[in-house]
Amino acid sequence: MHICYVVAMRAEARPFVEAYGLSKVDGFFVPLPCILYDGMAGDCRLSVVLNGEQHGTDLVGCEAASVATMAAIERLHPDMVVNSGTCGAFKAQGASIAEVFVGNGAMFHDRRVPGDDGFATQSLGNYAVWDGSRALAERLGLKMGKVTTGSSLDMQPCDLAVIQQHGGQLKDMEGAAVAFVCSLFHTPLLLVKSVTDLCDDGAATFEEFTKNLSAASQSLNEANQRIINRLSAL
Amino acid sequence: MHICYVVAMRAEARPFVEAYGLSKVDGFFVPLPCILYDGMAGDCRLSVVLNGEQHGTDLVGCEAASVATMAAIERLHPDMVVNSGTCGAFKAQGASIAEVFVGNGAMFHDRRVPGDDGFATQSLGNYAVWDGSRALAERLGLKMGKVTTGSSLDMQPCDLAVIQQHGGQLKDMEGAAVAFVCSLFHTPLLLVKSVTDLCDDGAATFEEFTKNLSAASQSLNEANQRIINRLSAL
Repeated sequence: MHICYVVAMRAEARPFVEAYGLSKVDGFFVPLPCILYDGMAGDCRLSVVLNGEQHGTDLVGCEAASVATMAAIERLHPDMVVNSGTCGAFKAQGASIAEVFVGNGAMFHDRRVPGDDGFATQSLGNYAVWDGSRALAERLGLKMGKVTTGSSLDMQPCDLAVIQQHGGQLKDMEGAAVAFVCSLFHTPLLLVKSVTDLCDDGAATFEEFTKNLSAASQSLNEANQRIINRLSAL
Repeated sequence: MHICYVVAMRAEARPFVEAYGLSKVDGFFVPLPCILYDGMAGDCRLSVVLNGEQHGTDLVGCEAASVATMAAIERLHPDMVVNSGTCGAFKAQGASIAEVFVGNGAMFHDRRVPGDDGFATQSLGNYAVWDGSRALAERLGLKMGKVTTGSSLDMQPCDLAVIQQHGGQLKDMEGAAVAFVCSLFHTPLLLVKSVTDLCDDGAATFEEFTKNLSAASQSLNEANQRIINRLSAL
């Protein structure tokens, strides 16, 4: 079993890379900026692929996630991709800071193409996740939610309208892009998201995100270790 | 010289594929949905890569463009990528329907990440184009403009604000994603855009786009033939 995590931010990946003593493999993705950490978790091969950096910051967003996922699948051929990261969620739905969810699907909330034909359907996305996601979440006592992805950190009225109309619950900046690429390669995808900010509590997203990133990354790390224990037993 | 066009829509590519008698190469990008047309234009090898289809429609948008561009570069190793397609433009800047522009840069207008640090800079993008773009445009009498890319066909106030603040002129749904991937692989990029709709004339984008797609694709085809004549003489 070879599990490959695709992760945007170093802060999200670091506790996890350290917990498993993964080694950085220099130059693996050249000329791409993606970074590979590789090692074992029990009998499981475990890879962590980061998008890389640009302008001194972690590359975030959907294009970088598309590239990293495609590079990871083409060069590592994992049995499963896990997109692990932080997200916004809704207090009204019972979410709390640093709570970890497993995704039950992924959609885009900022690709507005009108019409009832295929263009609107493909733009919304609605990609499936690994069919074992629900059993895993139940076994570990984690809630599930629909990941909704956009390229911006803020929440515009046009984004919120799409999220509400289509049942989005976990707002992130990569999930649906990773899911799109995984769907093209028929690679099973597990989504694991930890809450940094509540979209409906009136606080500023950026400040909340910054304040809670460390706590959310820590709970994400704990959840991921439990997830890998389960997956490696499959 | 090997020129590779990356194109989203069949209607944009068809006149061009027919003009050069390019052959469809079945299965080249399997399992990806991307489609390859290949042939010669004089002494030049000419490839056209389409994103492919989903839900019975051409795959559009930035994730599909990222995947197609990466697949094209990794599997074809072209000397140059050309992203050719249709766009919205501004009447106030003198643009008219079916007018063809050469891009002098590419940015994103719908990736809003706050702050003055690298996150805001990388999210805006501002990717460079092939350094011969200006000379080519002057030689062929084509105007230049800054391509501004987003994942939606409509224009929201938040998008327009970014476009105006950063000098966006040619609004499309792929250019900056193609430019981002080309920048990672250090592959020169030429942007060629034909106007289907004027963002500031009060008409509905989708209706204008549909009405003018054929005329804009035809002028795009004529411009591309002149462009290839010049490039193949390099």
